[in-house]
Amino acid sequence: MSKRKLETCLSPALYEPELHNGSIVVIIDVLRATSAICTAFANGAFSIIPVAGVEEARDYKNRGYLVAAERDGFVLDFADFGNSPFNFTREKIEGKTIVYSTTNGTGIIKLASKADKIVIGSYLNITALTEWIIRYDNEVVLFCAGWKNRFNLEDTMCAGAIGERLMGSSLYSTICDSTHAAIDLWSLAKNDPRGYIEKTAQRSRLRDKGLDDCIDFCLTPDFTEKIPVINNGILVNY
Amino acid sequence: MSKRKLETCLSPALYEPELHNGSIVVIIDVLRATSAICTAFANGAFSIIPVAGVEEARDYKNRGYLVAAERDGFVLDFADFGNSPFNFTREKIEGKTIVYSTTNGTGIIKLASKADKIVIGSYLNITALTEWIIRYDNEVVLFCAGWKNRFNLEDTMCAGAIGERLMGSSLYSTICDSTHAAIDLWSLAKNDPRGYIEKTAQRSRLRDKGLDDCIDFCLTPDFTEKIPVINNGILVNY
Repeated sequence: MSKRKLETCLSPALYEPELHNGSIVVIIDVLRATSAICTAFANGAFSIIPVAGVEEARDYKNRGYLVAAERDGFVLDFADFGNSPFNFTREKIEGKTIVYSTTNGTGIIKLASKADKIVIGSYLNITALTEWIIRYDNEVVLFCAGWKNRFNLEDTMCAGAIGERLMGSSLYSTICDSTHAAIDLWSLAKNDPRGYIEKTAQRSRLRDKGLDDCIDFCLTPDFTEKIPVINNGILVNY
Repeated sequence: MSKRKLETCLSPALYEPELHNGSIVVIIDVLRATSAICTAFANGAFSIIPVAGVEEARDYKNRGYLVAAERDGFVLDFADFGNSPFNFTREKIEGKTIVYSTTNGTGIIKLASKADKIVIGSYLNITALTEWIIRYDNEVVLFCAGWKNRFNLEDTMCAGAIGERLMGSSLYSTICDSTHAAIDLWSLAKNDPRGYIEKTAQRSRLRDKGLDDCIDFCLTPDFTEKIPVINNGILVNY
């Protein structure tokens, strides 16, 4: 049996949608969008409507929806809360539909919209996620959200952690340099992810804004078994 | 004294020209364009005219120039030779001006044309290059040519090797995740660059085309002290 192809996209600027129509695309935005989405489903969210634009988020708010919206880490004035996973508490969100707009994450979901399956990846659901991916015969793309179309280390590390597990299953093969790089960087980071992430630009940005309280949490493996997937444009638990 | 900023661009698709008007941009296309250019100057080339397009290269040929031109590793039919550094022998090129068009490298020189200085980097000139860079107060961008706008490992490794030396001078600082990634990948590769490069897609491509005879040579540090720089659109030895 031929192996399934595994690829990694290190930034939205490098994504080639036409190559991945039949793929599972795993969206990774560890600090903090995909960690927050996994937390929301862990705490009982019913669904999440991803929107790319601020105005679209505002319209939903005016129609009575619960809205999570931030730009560069700051909560937008009309929103109920921002992007920290700590906002998505059971008290606030259980059973509810949330409209969610972030700097990087939601735009990427739109970019990948032609893929066969779109799934949300983070450390928080890594074991359940990789077991779910392996059940399907699809090619896989690990899609790092990056930051404003740039490469970032924290998403690449997480792609490496997922890639290492998929390659370990012996079901996948890769001739993708980005996948090799991600797995190799993860090999340097995995004994101390919290220490490794100290060098990243996003770590400094979050510290400067006083938003770094969630970093340890975002690096926690297997907080949840939820698998947020896109279904008709909406994020639901698989 | 504040330190100079060091950044790395992992692919032409990630290059932001407006950020680098005052910078030294180091073009890196190890397999094989920038290695071939360094070899050409080592063997006495007078100058190299980089052209991005095939038709422009053909026009120069019709006007009597010596033309090096390839696409995907194959020599174009009208050209005198292609992209292997082994083509640029002293017998063929000493004292001459060569017109040079390649898959990735020459397009990138155009993309970086607004920078303060554009210089050609490879393992072949790495010590002379880093000593030359350090003489100037400019910010530095290590610009990996990649492959067809994609990330590649072999250029990233070389950027890491150069970046490690620049950071070692204590004259530079970086908050660029791509620079950290390149240096970290180089830390994994540097004890056996030839072994590390086995996993790259370009290594397979060159083998499939029988063009891999030059890999050992392209990984040789300090074959030359030449510093090819762009001057009025033309590559000359500094």
